[in-house]
Amino acid sequence: MEINGKRMMERVRELGEIGKDAEGRRTRLAASDEDKAGRDKVVEWMKDAELKVVVDRIGNIFGIWETEENKEKKPIMIGSHIDSVIDAGQYDGCIGVIGGIEVIKRLQETGVKTERPIVVGVFTNEEGVRYSPDMMGSLVYAGGMDIEKVLKTVGTDGTILGEELKRIGYDGTVEPGFLQPEAFVEYHIEQGPIMDVEGIQIGAVENLQGIHWQRVTIEGAANHAGTTPTKLRVDAGLAAAKVNVFLRNLVEQSGGVATVGTIEFEPNAVNVIPSKAVFTVDLRNPKKEKLDADEKALAEYFKELEETDKVKIITERMTEFDPVLFDEEIVEKIEAAAEKRGLSTKSMTSGAGQDAQMLARICPTAMIFVPSVKGISHNPEEYTPDENVIEGANVFLDVVGELAGEK
Amino acid sequence: MEINGKRMMERVRELGEIGKDAEGRRTRLAASDEDKAGRDKVVEWMKDAELKVVVDRIGNIFGIWETEENKEKKPIMIGSHIDSVIDAGQYDGCIGVIGGIEVIKRLQETGVKTERPIVVGVFTNEEGVRYSPDMMGSLVYAGGMDIEKVLKTVGTDGTILGEELKRIGYDGTVEPGFLQPEAFVEYHIEQGPIMDVEGIQIGAVENLQGIHWQRVTIEGAANHAGTTPTKLRVDAGLAAAKVNVFLRNLVEQSGGVATVGTIEFEPNAVNVIPSKAVFTVDLRNPKKEKLDADEKALAEYFKELEETDKVKIITERMTEFDPVLFDEEIVEKIEAAAEKRGLSTKSMTSGAGQDAQMLARICPTAMIFVPSVKGISHNPEEYTPDENVIEGANVFLDVVGELAGEK
Repeated sequence: MEINGKRMMERVRELGEIGKDAEGRRTRLAASDEDKAGRDKVVEWMKDAELKVVVDRIGNIFGIWETEENKEKKPIMIGSHIDSVIDAGQYDGCIGVIGGIEVIKRLQETGVKTERPIVVGVFTNEEGVRYSPDMMGSLVYAGGMDIEKVLKTVGTDGTILGEELKRIGYDGTVEPGFLQPEAFVEYHIEQGPIMDVEGIQIGAVENLQGIHWQRVTIEGAANHAGTTPTKLRVDAGLAAAKVNVFLRNLVEQSGGVATVGTIEFEPNAVNVIPSKAVFTVDLRNPKKEKLDADEKALAEYFKELEETDKVKIITERMTEFDPVLFDEEIVEKIEAAAEKRGLSTKSMTSGAGQDAQMLARICPTAMIFVPSVKGISHNPEEYTPDENVIEGANVFLDVVGELAGEK
Repeated sequence: MEINGKRMMERVRELGEIGKDAEGRRTRLAASDEDKAGRDKVVEWMKDAELKVVVDRIGNIFGIWETEENKEKKPIMIGSHIDSVIDAGQYDGCIGVIGGIEVIKRLQETGVKTERPIVVGVFTNEEGVRYSPDMMGSLVYAGGMDIEKVLKTVGTDGTILGEELKRIGYDGTVEPGFLQPEAFVEYHIEQGPIMDVEGIQIGAVENLQGIHWQRVTIEGAANHAGTTPTKLRVDAGLAAAKVNVFLRNLVEQSGGVATVGTIEFEPNAVNVIPSKAVFTVDLRNPKKEKLDADEKALAEYFKELEETDKVKIITERMTEFDPVLFDEEIVEKIEAAAEKRGLSTKSMTSGAGQDAQMLARICPTAMIFVPSVKGISHNPEEYTPDENVIEGANVFLDVVGELAGEK
């Protein structure tokens, strides 16, 4: 059995046209007019597949395929998100939603019946660009945040999330978490370069990196760059540089990744030694004990630097997500399905945050990845060839069919 | 023989009051109304010492003490500058000008005659804040820049230097360089911490560091901080950090100093690997061959980084001044004079640029330093105790008297 690749790709492109501005930049921020247009289109496709459409209080949309025979059983949930970053690509999130509808549609068309209902979820505000935090809809669905509080979230544009959901007509009445899934599977692009570089067609995502963000402030002393001898310098900029070099060595040992993505010096003058360096550290590792060990080693290095470089170091926690371990059995099913179709596959780690990491709190969960050319994402250059998208959707079809109990 | 310490310090404070704004911030930018007020005060003191006042075309002021007997001989020139940075201290430059007038005044009061004339020079725009380059007046005087071109310099406020000099009445008619000095001595604060830390009273400045500035642009690739494995990263920010650490090791070997004072990342986002890092390198060394060797080693390191880190590195020259070697004999006279007065002394390097470095192009030159408490300068906290200022002025008196041939 195969999904309808032509229909699938037409829908990817149709949704991809929604939210483009005059310059052709694609942007569908959560609960915006553009998001509403995307949601309306998805609901239209759900209705075309005769799904029962339910919207919960955080605006998550669910398309439910159930029968009189299976409606008492816990459903298999699939899906992703359709909100986007600013000037986005067309694959991130969308192939998981469109692929989910396609899987059900194809099962219906071929007359397959399943032992469990299948539900396609479209989760609100995965990107977190307009409202913080990201992965909001799935986090709320999994019981990780209080719905009353979340609806009062103020956006970067001063809007209130609850009011905006109401304005676009997606302020549902059902409580998030109303359906307890038997399992959750998300189909997504990798958003990284590994599969493209290694020539892998199907990623069986076994875990998701933990993410620790901190803001680091190093205080030194602003002195004349010419008249201050090396031994009398307290150079905040140099200390920051040492941290960056230290981090690279650290993660080369631990197998994680580390990024100093932002930096600022004060007074930021050519001939004045920096009195202050403020920068961010993004530290990730799929293993919690390694992530914690790296962070501890970094904290010890800060203490060492305070001694050797005479600086003062202040750290501030920005984000802390533990690593997520996905369900081994589903991961094995993904690999087996890929192999059966003659596709190259490997078990891998999600470097990015995902709705699946939230659903993993309430049911066995895993993800299917297809390659991102050159690893580019969150950018109009984001690209996955049609062939790869269709291959991934076929594996998705196989795995969901198996989990739901094809009859 | 002693200078009149009370008069000297009163004048330092009197000039220090000129150019203060409503908030008490002291600023006398070159050729501004505040600079004019300072110049008028200095000319008043020159006339009080019966000096012949001559202004050259770049606005340098000279107070000439000559007699019928010595006027045919080449003069000893002394002096410094009275223009300031924004929100400045009261010592930088000013003690050299006031001290110079005081030296002549004191020689006159004690009935000393000299074999050579003595001339106090006040050089235009040493700080270079309003008009570029710095040390402009002394550079033009030493023949290093074309006067016609310099007078057309456009300031940061859009003004033309020549027009501003005319407006404040300091557009002289005499050609710069009209007096060929026999020697030049500049009395100045250290503007660095070495003398304060080591408890030295008199610095005999034997050389001045060469200064090389460059702007460095490192180009990497902006990729997702979570999904891009370490081995596939091209991190421009990390490469910039490595350069900063390399520079510190480099100057610890060569005896110079290095500063990365400014930095900027693009896109400067927490979870995006920097695609670009732009920063400045301020590299100094008192020895030309060492400065050149350091710069060569840095260029080689850039090539190495392009290989190892896969980045692209572009450098742009901003400033290049060779080191200056001062006159050994005058330096020895300064040390001898200090010792004779029972003052601690050491031969040292000027870390900052000075008018004396330009005068050294046309005659034997040296400088006398007194300590800056905590090395602070270009700041209202700039401070040298009266005792130190007076001690330095007495050594200045001794050295100038000797050079001019006291009778």
